[in-house]
Amino acid sequence: MDRLTLISQIRKKRSFLCVGLDTDPARIPGHLRKSDDPVFEFNKAVIEATRDHCVAYKPNIAFYEAMGPKGWHTLEKTLALIPDDIFTIADAKRGDIGNSSKKYAETFFQTFDFDAVTLSPYMGEDSIRPFLEFEGKWAILLALTSNPGAEDFQSAGDEPLYRRVLEVSSRWGHDGNTMYVVGATRPEAFTAVRQVVPGHFLLVPGVGAQGGDFDRLCDAGLNKDTGLLVNASRSILYASSGTDFAEKAGEQAAAMARQMAGRIS
Amino acid sequence: MDRLTLISQIRKKRSFLCVGLDTDPARIPGHLRKSDDPVFEFNKAVIEATRDHCVAYKPNIAFYEAMGPKGWHTLEKTLALIPDDIFTIADAKRGDIGNSSKKYAETFFQTFDFDAVTLSPYMGEDSIRPFLEFEGKWAILLALTSNPGAEDFQSAGDEPLYRRVLEVSSRWGHDGNTMYVVGATRPEAFTAVRQVVPGHFLLVPGVGAQGGDFDRLCDAGLNKDTGLLVNASRSILYASSGTDFAEKAGEQAAAMARQMAGRIS
Repeated sequence: MDRLTLISQIRKKRSFLCVGLDTDPARIPGHLRKSDDPVFEFNKAVIEATRDHCVAYKPNIAFYEAMGPKGWHTLEKTLALIPDDIFTIADAKRGDIGNSSKKYAETFFQTFDFDAVTLSPYMGEDSIRPFLEFEGKWAILLALTSNPGAEDFQSAGDEPLYRRVLEVSSRWGHDGNTMYVVGATRPEAFTAVRQVVPGHFLLVPGVGAQGGDFDRLCDAGLNKDTGLLVNASRSILYASSGTDFAEKAGEQAAAMARQMAGRIS
Repeated sequence: MDRLTLISQIRKKRSFLCVGLDTDPARIPGHLRKSDDPVFEFNKAVIEATRDHCVAYKPNIAFYEAMGPKGWHTLEKTLALIPDDIFTIADAKRGDIGNSSKKYAETFFQTFDFDAVTLSPYMGEDSIRPFLEFEGKWAILLALTSNPGAEDFQSAGDEPLYRRVLEVSSRWGHDGNTMYVVGATRPEAFTAVRQVVPGHFLLVPGVGAQGGDFDRLCDAGLNKDTGLLVNASRSILYASSGTDFAEKAGEQAAAMARQMAGRIS
């Protein structure tokens, strides 16, 4: 999906919500567990309940990989359910030397047909470049993540690593094929991020279960094209642990979208 | 596999060679392509030809993922062929927030039974910690990689990132559950690396196709327990593109092991 289409979807749906499909088999309601593929049945119900309220879905690949080969079938079937006008992100955090990164790009952009994949920038330009060579596809680079460990390397020092990542990597591509992960748990950083990448979309985890402040991150992070995809995973998926899980997931997504509607120009 | 067993295998086999199973379907000799699973047949022949000359195998997960769900079956079957006394490394370069990294650890240490997995340290302690909680398993952190992009972030600045990664992360575990990736293409860095982590094993890519200098890296990188696993992938796998590919792979591995034998105390 190209940039203009994404922006028009945000304006049409009055939402910049991304729903994270980090489906943990251990947290699936009991009544679904007897099916052949409980994760798929769970995802299907969540997608049907939330698709009118979000503009992106983001399966975290860790949860599918951990199921072994059948997890990749579940991922494939889940992806097939997502309407074409919704942006899809493989939250994979890959990154390797050039010939291996080329294989990862083939995995997520060809074997699967995701719009975007999240990447770790640690290995530098040749680890990211293969992802930028696919027309209409996106590389989403980790900049400042939402977890406590972000302080170990990303934000340490006078000239923090995450700023260098933004400065250097924003020259490899452009705001039509590159986004950045910036965690909602550090709203004070959005002003600094916007100084370096005013036009890029930011993928923002950490609003739900991790406790980030929605209004503060919007104040500093929004740009004229909205420029944010705010992700919630656990707070939507596990809004209820009963038979009404999908209904509650839909209500939770709708509530977040209502909060977003007022911030879209 | 624990540290003492790995060291005793190195002394017994007079080798610290790791063979990288980065099997590219496009580079498999023509006569194997008609089989149901050409990658598996290729790996099988390579493992049989090289297993007496190496102490570790390292499949690069990118190459298996790119094959879709069936690639994970191929990986599973390949892993089952590797003798128990050979160390196995999932070259996956994973790393995510705690609950997702826990899933990746389950993937490689439980769903599969690898001894070790390579990890990107970008997201800090809580992204690595779940891998250190498995008894007898190893986290292998990227420090200074062999590719050109290592200069973008890892080695940039007066106090380079890779040194900080070594200093900070070596406190999370110990030399019995943590190793580091240090590329052979930067032999001058091994002295600096050994100042920070004298006792840790280093996984060293970049000797074969990437052109690193074996003697220089040994001079600065070896420690009293050897402390190195030197990897070669393409120079072994693709030593011949004909029906004699396995024989040539074996010869190449044997030649590298002979070079190593003289450096083992």
